Amino acid sequence: MRTLASLLFFAAMNIGLSSVCWAADAPIFGTFALFGVHEDWGDMPLEERQKGGQEAKALLESFSKQVTVDGYWTYGLTTDSHFMLRLHSADLQANQQLLTQLRGSGLGRHVDLVYTISGVIKGLNYAPDFPDLLEKLKMGKYEGEPPQYAIMIPIRKNAAWWNLSKEDRVAMMKEHTLPTLSYLKSVKRKLYHATGLSDADFLTIFETNNLVDFNNLVIALRMVREDTFNVQLGEPTVIGTIKSWNDIVDLLVK
Amino acid sequence: MRTLASLLFFAAMNIGLSSVCWAADAPIFGTFALFGVHEDWGDMPLEERQKGGQEAKALLESFSKQVTVDGYWTYGLTTDSHFMLRLHSADLQANQQLLTQLRGSGLGRHVDLVYTISGVIKGLNYAPDFPDLLEKLKMGKYEGEPPQYAIMIPIRKNAAWWNLSKEDRVAMMKEHTLPTLSYLKSVKRKLYHATGLSDADFLTIFETNNLVDFNNLVIALRMVREDTFNVQLGEPTVIGTIKSWNDIVDLLVK
Amino acid sequence: MRTLASLLFFAAMNIGLSSVCWAADAPIFGTFALFGVHEDWGDMPLEERQKGGQEAKALLESFSKQVTVDGYWTYGLTTDSHFMLRLHSADLQANQQLLTQLRGSGLGRHVDLVYTISGVIKGLNYAPDFPDLLEKLKMGKYEGEPPQYAIMIPIRKNAAWWNLSKEDRVAMMKEHTLPTLSYLKSVKRKLYHATGLSDADFLTIFETNNLVDFNNLVIALRMVREDTFNVQLGEPTVIGTIKSWNDIVDLLVK
Amino acid sequence: MRTLASLLFFAAMNIGLSSVCWAADAPIFGTFALFGVHEDWGDMPLEERQKGGQEAKALLESFSKQVTVDGYWTYGLTTDSHFMLRLHSADLQANQQLLTQLRGSGLGRHVDLVYTISGVIKGLNYAPDFPDLLEKLKMGKYEGEPPQYAIMIPIRKNAAWWNLSKEDRVAMMKEHTLPTLSYLKSVKRKLYHATGLSDADFLTIFETNNLVDFNNLVIALRMVREDTFNVQLGEPTVIGTIKSWNDIVDLLVK
Amino acid sequence: MRTLASLLFFAAMNIGLSSVCWAADAPIFGTFALFGVHEDWGDMPLEERQKGGQEAKALLESFSKQVTVDGYWTYGLTTDSHFMLRLHSADLQANQQLLTQLRGSGLGRHVDLVYTISGVIKGLNYAPDFPDLLEKLKMGKYEGEPPQYAIMIPIRKNAAWWNLSKEDRVAMMKEHTLPTLSYLKSVKRKLYHATGLSDADFLTIFETNNLVDFNNLVIALRMVREDTFNVQLGEPTVIGTIKSWNDIVDLLVK
Repeated sequence: MRTLASLLFFAAMNIGLSSVCWAADAPIFGTFALFGVHEDWGDMPLEERQKGGQEAKALLESFSKQVTVDGYWTYGLTTDSHFMLRLHSADLQANQQLLTQLRGSGLGRHVDLVYTISGVIKGLNYAPDFPDLLEKLKMGKYEGEPPQYAIMIPIRKNAAWWNLSKEDRVAMMKEHTLPTLSYLKSVKRKLYHATGLSDADFLTIFETNNLVDFNNLVIALRMVREDTFNVQLGEPTVIGTIKSWNDIVDLLVK
Repeated sequence: MRTLASLLFFAAMNIGLSSVCWAADAPIFGTFALFGVHEDWGDMPLEERQKGGQEAKALLESFSKQVTVDGYWTYGLTTDSHFMLRLHSADLQANQQLLTQLRGSGLGRHVDLVYTISGVIKGLNYAPDFPDLLEKLKMGKYEGEPPQYAIMIPIRKNAAWWNLSKEDRVAMMKEHTLPTLSYLKSVKRKLYHATGLSDADFLTIFETNNLVDFNNLVIALRMVREDTFNVQLGEPTVIGTIKSWNDIVDLLVK
Repeated sequence: MRTLASLLFFAAMNIGLSSVCWAADAPIFGTFALFGVHEDWGDMPLEERQKGGQEAKALLESFSKQVTVDGYWTYGLTTDSHFMLRLHSADLQANQQLLTQLRGSGLGRHVDLVYTISGVIKGLNYAPDFPDLLEKLKMGKYEGEPPQYAIMIPIRKNAAWWNLSKEDRVAMMKEHTLPTLSYLKSVKRKLYHATGLSDADFLTIFETNNLVDFNNLVIALRMVREDTFNVQLGEPTVIGTIKSWNDIVDLLVK
Repeated sequence: MRTLASLLFFAAMNIGLSSVCWAADAPIFGTFALFGVHEDWGDMPLEERQKGGQEAKALLESFSKQVTVDGYWTYGLTTDSHFMLRLHSADLQANQQLLTQLRGSGLGRHVDLVYTISGVIKGLNYAPDFPDLLEKLKMGKYEGEPPQYAIMIPIRKNAAWWNLSKEDRVAMMKEHTLPTLSYLKSVKRKLYHATGLSDADFLTIFETNNLVDFNNLVIALRMVREDTFNVQLGEPTVIGTIKSWNDIVDLLVK
Repeated sequence: MRTLASLLFFAAMNIGLSSVCWAADAPIFGTFALFGVHEDWGDMPLEERQKGGQEAKALLESFSKQVTVDGYWTYGLTTDSHFMLRLHSADLQANQQLLTQLRGSGLGRHVDLVYTISGVIKGLNYAPDFPDLLEKLKMGKYEGEPPQYAIMIPIRKNAAWWNLSKEDRVAMMKEHTLPTLSYLKSVKRKLYHATGLSDADFLTIFETNNLVDFNNLVIALRMVREDTFNVQLGEPTVIGTIKSWNDIVDLLVK
């Protein structure tokens, strides 16, 4: 259950949940929906594509009170896809309703939902057990221009991980957290818990302008014992550039 | 073989098999059928879609004496799918006949059966060996509003599991059952045996209104030794919202 | 090489090879061909479908002297498929010729062969080394109504299995055979050797009216050491109802 | 690098490279190209198919000085495919050029290249280290009618294999070779080295009239230690009947 | 971060980044984009294909100041593909923009991006720790005709690798580097770091005229301990012939 305190902390984690007024005690659900456009879309008359695009723009606008949407243009960088939407709402059903209505729009009838995965934002599991590091995490702030790149990575642990004692997991998560401190200024990160809701245990999304820093960060995360318990890290790794929904629609219609 | 006693117990497990009058000594077969709609469906004339939808509604109605059907809207939350049907009957063939006739309907001609898996409801394997827990299981009752979410998870054990002594398996299933007690009020659960009938050993479906509780429940189920014997847990995890068949058809026709 | 003696034994195994006169010393090849119907088939004019169906019926008839064909309706129970054919002939080429000509028929032009796998019937490998059990196997006879369900399961062993001494394999196959005795009356079973001819080592097909017995049988087969050497058991498990070719064609045409 | 001596040896291995005059010191590259025909091909007008077939026949003829082509009809026996071509040339580019031009033909525009893999013929790695066996290998000759069946099996070793000492690998390859002697008369075999050129380390093609012998041969090859180092053996196993290109085209056009 | 020094070294590594003037201190991003042509492309009117081709040629030309593009014709040698582009730029977004605009061209509307993966060029990780070998690496120069073949191989390490001490990894990378010295004259090689940007850790592309040397090189690379830590080596291995973009377009239009 998310508390106001954890909400404030998430704000410090640098990936905002703007424009929707969240109840302080409600969980927040995130859905990552990756789309590919049908083969025939590009050969449809421009007018029809424009109309379809307008419907798709209007639809997201109509949900703006319930669902926050972030857009990512993945074509060229992520296999078999054109764009990804990230939806946040207090109720997973609202995410589903938006996507369901989107598929009824003129654009939505010509896209496939090639991958979708959801998780829930929860308070920190382990960090409270290493308060010194937690303090530093809270003080680390993203600096500079708004990030242009986003990378979404699902993670699944093996049963051996979950069968470890809490103490052992805390120790390893401390090792995991330590190397991330140096990258707080250049890489934003947000975590979702997905066990049971999907085939992954965690979804993590990174945003950055510095892909070399990001590459070094993930290498650092592979160099600790905790990574030996991951049976899935990526597969898919979804990488794209951050774009507004309107810009994504314009790219598709053009 | 299901007995009246086990039937009563299943009722206590909270996922009812309503509206069909089941013989007390017959097994019950469950089929989970996940469908995706063809690309061209959305561009077909509304009239044609409406007619196709009417046929599909009438068809399920015509089977209501033999087959109980539950519906789930999965679009947006489960990759490459639009909806799932769960069919219960005393004879697996009846499930197949319904699905076969459905594909002949105007709607059915434009959907693909992207995943289907069946199992049989049997009496409890292990719980009778830990009667104290069993008592608590039977007393736990789902409370509150009818659940809106459903999650179906197939499970496959490795050969090492099946080669354990019954005693060892009982001990681990007791560990597995213990953490579930706290969630009986907020999460319903039903189990099907699928060994030989499919590539999975078990199919388990959960229904809930509280996805955070559900996420915590599945994490708890991963923290016991029994999970180290699972070679498949999900893949796919099918998640959706509970809807009547008529509502699903309306969503598809709209 | 199959001898008359083993042929007689196979008859005792209860899955007959009727209507073709087999040479006593020739091997028999079985091909399992799983088909899915094209999306557009259902929207073709009824007349065209009927004509296509007639051609497909006539074609199988024309092969009746060389190839025995069994049919299974898999739609609804096996993912991405509509039906499976099992072909037996003394020459794998005859199976191929039938399938090749079938694809030229009006129906065959609108189906995909989504999975095909072949094996050869051989004498018993291990049973002669445990003559007491073999005696019981031979005495076990399927009883009751003709079976309505069939399940085809391919099996692949790991290299460790094949590197075991014959003695060790005999001992484990004896363990494997023992629990099957109780099910001889309710479940028929037939084995094909497929090493080199496919990615599997064995293909096994079961026929039954009692799916609960069948489920218990396969669980029993997973509870012996031999199963720890299986790297594939199913994947796919093909399950369907037994139907004549004419009935399958009628279902497709309707 | 192939020498005249090894060429002569390969001739003894029984799968000839006829009709092209090979330079004695040039490597020979083999490409296995597996094709599936488009859904719409069968419904195209016969004339158009005939014209497309004629173009495809003429094309292969035009390459006869540079590329040797063997044909295999795989439909019915190998999933998702209709035929396979094996191309041999002194230059992998020539194989590619033939396939590239083929796709421009009237037939080629309606087939998909569903799987392609290439390797190079090299001198024997290990056999020179067990000269007694080598002598027997060279003396073994295929006898009887030309083979009608062919089976192509890609093989990948794990890193442990390649990290063994040469001595250890020689010892295991000797074990591997020993059981093959009994099958030289009934099964032809040819080996290609594919490390780096593909995801496999070796491609091996067998030709035979006796599939029971072949099945026993592959079982024997699984019973030696060397097989415990294989991480891929098949996947796909491509099985078909040997046919001339003209016969394959006729089957497709009919 | 690439320095002028490392740039000079990369030049010595033999795969040039010609025609774009790179800032000496900027990272360089490489994107490998593998394309397959739609089924219907070949049946479109020649004029339309020619126009589409002209647009595609002009588009790449218009990016020549920001993005360097290398082309590879993969049809016939790499499953399910026709060609691959390698894009280099100082900004991954520029690679994406080129690909995005390409899909809007008359040719681009009829191709699928079946696989895409990106990495960044970085300074040498380990070689500075074995300066003697490094010296030899720098002195090795590709000789002879420009290479005609290219092979791209993605590589993923397991967590055990990344958890090794730097010292251990240096020792193994020295073993890995040693056998490559003999092939510097006949095989070019370039490395990209991809951790976090994709599911692979490294992308390596080889260019050569001597595929037998290349095959021997990769075998040598499998014979060292470092390879036992690879969980992915290839999958896909993309192999093709080096062609200019204009030549690739001409092959597609013809």
